[in-house]
Amino acid sequence: MIFHILFISLLTLLISTVGSPMNIWPTPRSLTWTSPHAILLSTSFTINSPSHRYLTPAVNRYLRQILTTHYTPLLPPTLNLTVTPPLQTLTISVDDVTAPLSPSVNESYTLTVTSHSATMTSATVWGAMRGLETFSQLIWGDPTRIASGLVVTDWPVFEHRGVMLDTGRNYYPVEDLIRLIGSMSANKLNVFHWHLTDSQSFPLVLESEPGLAGNGSYGSGMEYSREDVERVVEFGLEHGVRIVPEIDMPGHTGSWAEAYPDIVTCANMFWWPAGAAWEDRLASEPGTGHLNPLIPKTYDVVKNVVKETTTLFPDSFYHAGADETVPSCWKADPTIQAYLANNGTLSQVLEIFINNTNPYIVSLNRTTVYWEDVILDAGIKVNPLTLPPETTIMQTWNAGPDNTKRLVSAGYRTIVSSSDFYYLDCGHGDFTGNNSAYDQPPGFDQKKGGSWCGPFKTWQLIYNYDITYGLNETEAKLVLGGEVALWSEQADPTVLDSRMWPRASAMAESLWSGNRDETGKKRSADATDRLSEWIHRMVSRGVKAEPIQPLWCIKNPGMCNTANPIF
Amino acid sequence: MIFHILFISLLTLLISTVGSPMNIWPTPRSLTWTSPHAILLSTSFTINSPSHRYLTPAVNRYLRQILTTHYTPLLPPTLNLTVTPPLQTLTISVDDVTAPLSPSVNESYTLTVTSHSATMTSATVWGAMRGLETFSQLIWGDPTRIASGLVVTDWPVFEHRGVMLDTGRNYYPVEDLIRLIGSMSANKLNVFHWHLTDSQSFPLVLESEPGLAGNGSYGSGMEYSREDVERVVEFGLEHGVRIVPEIDMPGHTGSWAEAYPDIVTCANMFWWPAGAAWEDRLASEPGTGHLNPLIPKTYDVVKNVVKETTTLFPDSFYHAGADETVPSCWKADPTIQAYLANNGTLSQVLEIFINNTNPYIVSLNRTTVYWEDVILDAGIKVNPLTLPPETTIMQTWNAGPDNTKRLVSAGYRTIVSSSDFYYLDCGHGDFTGNNSAYDQPPGFDQKKGGSWCGPFKTWQLIYNYDITYGLNETEAKLVLGGEVALWSEQADPTVLDSRMWPRASAMAESLWSGNRDETGKKRSADATDRLSEWIHRMVSRGVKAEPIQPLWCIKNPGMCNTANPIF
Repeated sequence: MIFHILFISLLTLLISTVGSPMNIWPTPRSLTWTSPHAILLSTSFTINSPSHRYLTPAVNRYLRQILTTHYTPLLPPTLNLTVTPPLQTLTISVDDVTAPLSPSVNESYTLTVTSHSATMTSATVWGAMRGLETFSQLIWGDPTRIASGLVVTDWPVFEHRGVMLDTGRNYYPVEDLIRLIGSMSANKLNVFHWHLTDSQSFPLVLESEPGLAGNGSYGSGMEYSREDVERVVEFGLEHGVRIVPEIDMPGHTGSWAEAYPDIVTCANMFWWPAGAAWEDRLASEPGTGHLNPLIPKTYDVVKNVVKETTTLFPDSFYHAGADETVPSCWKADPTIQAYLANNGTLSQVLEIFINNTNPYIVSLNRTTVYWEDVILDAGIKVNPLTLPPETTIMQTWNAGPDNTKRLVSAGYRTIVSSSDFYYLDCGHGDFTGNNSAYDQPPGFDQKKGGSWCGPFKTWQLIYNYDITYGLNETEAKLVLGGEVALWSEQADPTVLDSRMWPRASAMAESLWSGNRDETGKKRSADATDRLSEWIHRMVSRGVKAEPIQPLWCIKNPGMCNTANPIF
Repeated sequence: MIFHILFISLLTLLISTVGSPMNIWPTPRSLTWTSPHAILLSTSFTINSPSHRYLTPAVNRYLRQILTTHYTPLLPPTLNLTVTPPLQTLTISVDDVTAPLSPSVNESYTLTVTSHSATMTSATVWGAMRGLETFSQLIWGDPTRIASGLVVTDWPVFEHRGVMLDTGRNYYPVEDLIRLIGSMSANKLNVFHWHLTDSQSFPLVLESEPGLAGNGSYGSGMEYSREDVERVVEFGLEHGVRIVPEIDMPGHTGSWAEAYPDIVTCANMFWWPAGAAWEDRLASEPGTGHLNPLIPKTYDVVKNVVKETTTLFPDSFYHAGADETVPSCWKADPTIQAYLANNGTLSQVLEIFINNTNPYIVSLNRTTVYWEDVILDAGIKVNPLTLPPETTIMQTWNAGPDNTKRLVSAGYRTIVSSSDFYYLDCGHGDFTGNNSAYDQPPGFDQKKGGSWCGPFKTWQLIYNYDITYGLNETEAKLVLGGEVALWSEQADPTVLDSRMWPRASAMAESLWSGNRDETGKKRSADATDRLSEWIHRMVSRGVKAEPIQPLWCIKNPGMCNTANPIF
C-alpha cells in the first residue's frame, strides 16, 4: 500500500515535471497514469448513461461539446498517439440515481480510459457530472484525441464550493447568470449564492409582493421573473450547481421602501452626513434603509417574500443576510426611538427581527445562512442561543481566519468568504463621488488605491489561502467550504467574466483537491502554467477569463518562473 | 467682457448643479447655453461638409450613428422640447482643408445649435471631427432629439493625448485595435502609440525582413500584415487619430533572435538567475535579449526595419524605444566583453547604438521619441548631447513629476506616461511563476498585491493628475501631453475595453479641457456622474467600459457623494 501511494506520487511528480501532458482543472485527487498515450475518439462517439432528468441533458451537452469543439491546447500535449480503433463509447454507471443535489451529496467518481474503452462509475448523478467535465478536459484536437491509459479517482476536499454574485447593486441579465453557472460547473464549483436584492434595487419579481420589484427594481427590463428563476434553477440542476437565494435583511433594504415606505427606516437619506463620525453613518455605503422590526406589517411582507422565495428556490439553504445593521438607521425611526427610550437596545431590536423570521424560515424546511455580523458585529448582534447550530450556518467575511475560528468554536458550520482573500471586487478604487481625498499631490502614498478591501486579490493569493488555518481537527470539520464574492458596486455584465475567472478557478482547485502537493508544499508554481492553459480553454468556450501571463510564458515553460521571491 | 466670462461661468455652474442636462465628454472648454431646450432632429437629417478624403467618411459615419442610434441616457435630459420644424442640416465649414493630421494641428471648432439651424466652423478637418463627436453627444432618444440654444467653442489644452498599447507581449487582432481607435476618437484622443514588438513576440510583418515576424511572432494568425497596418493607419486618419509605431530597441528584442540569433545578446536565457542580485538580472522581466550594437549586421537589420516601418506609418513621430537596457544582457556577449575589457563602458555601447540609428531615423524625416531611460537610466545612458531636442522627444514613465521636470529642463519636449498615474495594467498582481512570496500566512501585509506599480490606478487618480506639476511656464510648454499605457503581461483582448475605459476617458478630459473648474478647483466630483453617463454611452456603442458606480448612484444624483473624505 505504501508502495502504491509512492508509485502514484512519483507518477504525479513525473507528470508535473514534464509539463503535464494533459491539464485537468481542478486537478484530480488521484491520477494514475501508468502508460501515458493518446488514442483517437470516434466521430460517432457516444456516452451511455442511466436516463435521468438532469444527468441526461448533461450527457448530451458534453457529447455535443466533445464532438464539435476540437480544442487546440496552447502547448501540444506530449502524448504519443497509439493506433487502435477509435474510442466509441464512454459508459457511465451510477450507484444511486435518486440522490438529490444536496449540501453533502457524494460527488465522487472514478474514470478509467484504456486504449479500447472508457468507463466511469460514480456514487450519484452529480458525481457523474464532475467526471464528465474531467473526461471532456482529456480531449483535444482535430481529429479528436483523448488522453488514455489512466485512472482518475476523484472527490472534493470541501463540500461547499461557491460563487456569490450581487445582482442588487447592478443588474445582470439572465444570460450572464447562465454563462456563470455553466463555467462554475466546468470548474467543479457547486453553489451559486445569488445575492438577489439590496438597498439599490429589488429585481426579484414576486407574485405575492408585486410592488417590491415593481417599484424597487431598476426597471421592467432589469428584473428576474418567475420564468427567469425557474430557468436558472433548472440550468443549475443540469450542471450540478445549487442555487442558494439571499434576500438580505433587515439591513440593505432601501429598495423595499419604494413599495413600503412605512416598514423601512431611514430610507432615501444621505448615507453619511457631513462631519458625522463613521459610527454615525446611516448605512455602510450609499443606499440607506433597514426593515423596521417593531412594526407587525414588516413581518407580513417578509413572510410573503420568504415563502415565495423558498417556493422558487428548492435548495435546502436559504440565505437571510443580516449583515451591516447600523445603529443610526434604526435610531432615525420614532418607533425604535421610543423602544430605546424604554431601555431597549438595538441588539434586542435585531433579536426581535431574527426571532420573528428565522423560525419561519426553518419551518419551511430550510437551513438558514447568515452573514457573521448577526452574532459577531461589534455593535448590533443577537445572542448566539437565538440561532441553533443545527439549523444555522454562518458565512464569514471579516478578519480572515480569526472570525472563522470564532464561528466554528461557537459550533456553527461555516462558509468562508474572507474579504482579505475571496472578495473579487476589491482593488478597483472607491465609488463615492465628490471625494476630496482623491485629489492628492504627486508622491502621496496610494495605499490600497481607495478601495476599502484593496489591494486586488490575485489568483495566487486566493489559491494559497487555507480556509481552515489555525483550526483544530474538530473545528476544521465545521468549515463547509468557501465562496468567492463579487459585489457589484463596480461590476456589471461588462466585467463579470474577467473579475470572476480565473480567480474563482483558483479557489475551485484549492477547495476541490487542495492547494498543496504530496509533500505538503503549496503547488501554485505548477498551477501557473496549468491555469493559463485552463484560461485558454475557458476562453475557447466563450468565457472571457482574464490572462495571467504573456503567451510567451506558456510557450516557454519555466522561463517565466522566478528563482528569487518578489512581492 | 468680465461680465461675459462671469455669465458663462454662472451658466456652467447652473448646468452642473442641476445635473448637466446634456453630457459631453470630454467637457468643452466653453459652452454658452443661454436658452437650454431641445428640438427634434429630422429623420432626413443631413450633414453638409467640404468633400475630403478623411472628413467625408467621418461625416458619413456620424450621420449613420445619429440617425440610427436613438441613445437612451441613464437620466432623461431635463430639457423641454421646443416645437419647431425638425433640424434638417448641420453645415460644416473648414478654414483650411489641406492641413494634414500632424502633431500640432489646430483641432479647434465652434458649434452652434439654434432652434432652426446647426453650424460648425473649424480650422481644419481634424477640428471638424472633434466637433462632430460633440454634436453626436448632444443627441438622444426616439424620436431623435438634440440639445439646442447653445454655442460650443472648443480646443484642447494639450496637443498630444494618447493611448499606448503593447501588442508584443500578448496579441490583439486588428478588430480590437480598430475598436480601440474608434473609441479613442470618441474621447477626443488623437495619438495611438503602438508598441508593436517586444522580447516576447514580433508580430509586424516586414517584406524586407520576413524572418522577424516569420520566426518571432506568436504564429501566422497572430501577425500584422501590410494590409492590416494600412487599415489601421487609414482608420486612424478617418478618426483624427495619429498612429505612432514603436519598435523597441536595443533592449526588448528577444523575439528578433528567432530569426537572427547572431545580433541578439543573451537571448532565451533565464531572466534572473537564482541568488543573483536584481542588478544582475538579464532582463527586467522574463523574455531576455538586447540587440548587439557592436556588430555591423545589427544595423543592416535595424535599418531595414526602420525604413519599412516609416514607410508603413506616415506619422512624423517614430518611437525608437530604448527603455530598460540592462547590463548583464550585454555583458553576456563576448564581443561586448572584449569592448569593456578595453576600457569601454556600457553607456558607450548604447551611445554607439543610438549614433548608428537615430541619425538614420531623422534622415527619414522623423522626430524620434525615446523612453526617458535613454538619458535618465541610473546605469546605461547616453550623453544628452547625442540627442538634439529639435528632433527628439522624451517619454517619461518613472518618478512622477520629478522626471518630467528633469526632461523638460534639459530642453526636451516630453510626453507623460507616469507609471504612478497612467499605467493601466498595474494592480492585478504579478505574472512570474513559482514565486514563493505568494505563499504567506494570513494577516500579512498585502501591500500592492504583488504588482510592482500597484495599486490599480483609479479613474479619479488619473483624472486629477497634473502633468505639469511643479514646472514653470517655460518648462510646462515643453510638455506635449500624456499617454495612458496598457502593457500586456496581464492584458489581452478579453480585458482590453475594461482596462482602457473609462480610465483613458479620465485622462482624455483632463488633457482636453483640464481637470479644474473656473475657480481652479478639481472637478472630479462633478465628473463622476458625467463619466457614468459617458460609460453608458460607450457601452451602448459596443465598447465594454468598466462601471464605476451602482446604477442607483446615477439615478439618484448626489446621493453617492461623500461629505467626508475617504481614502
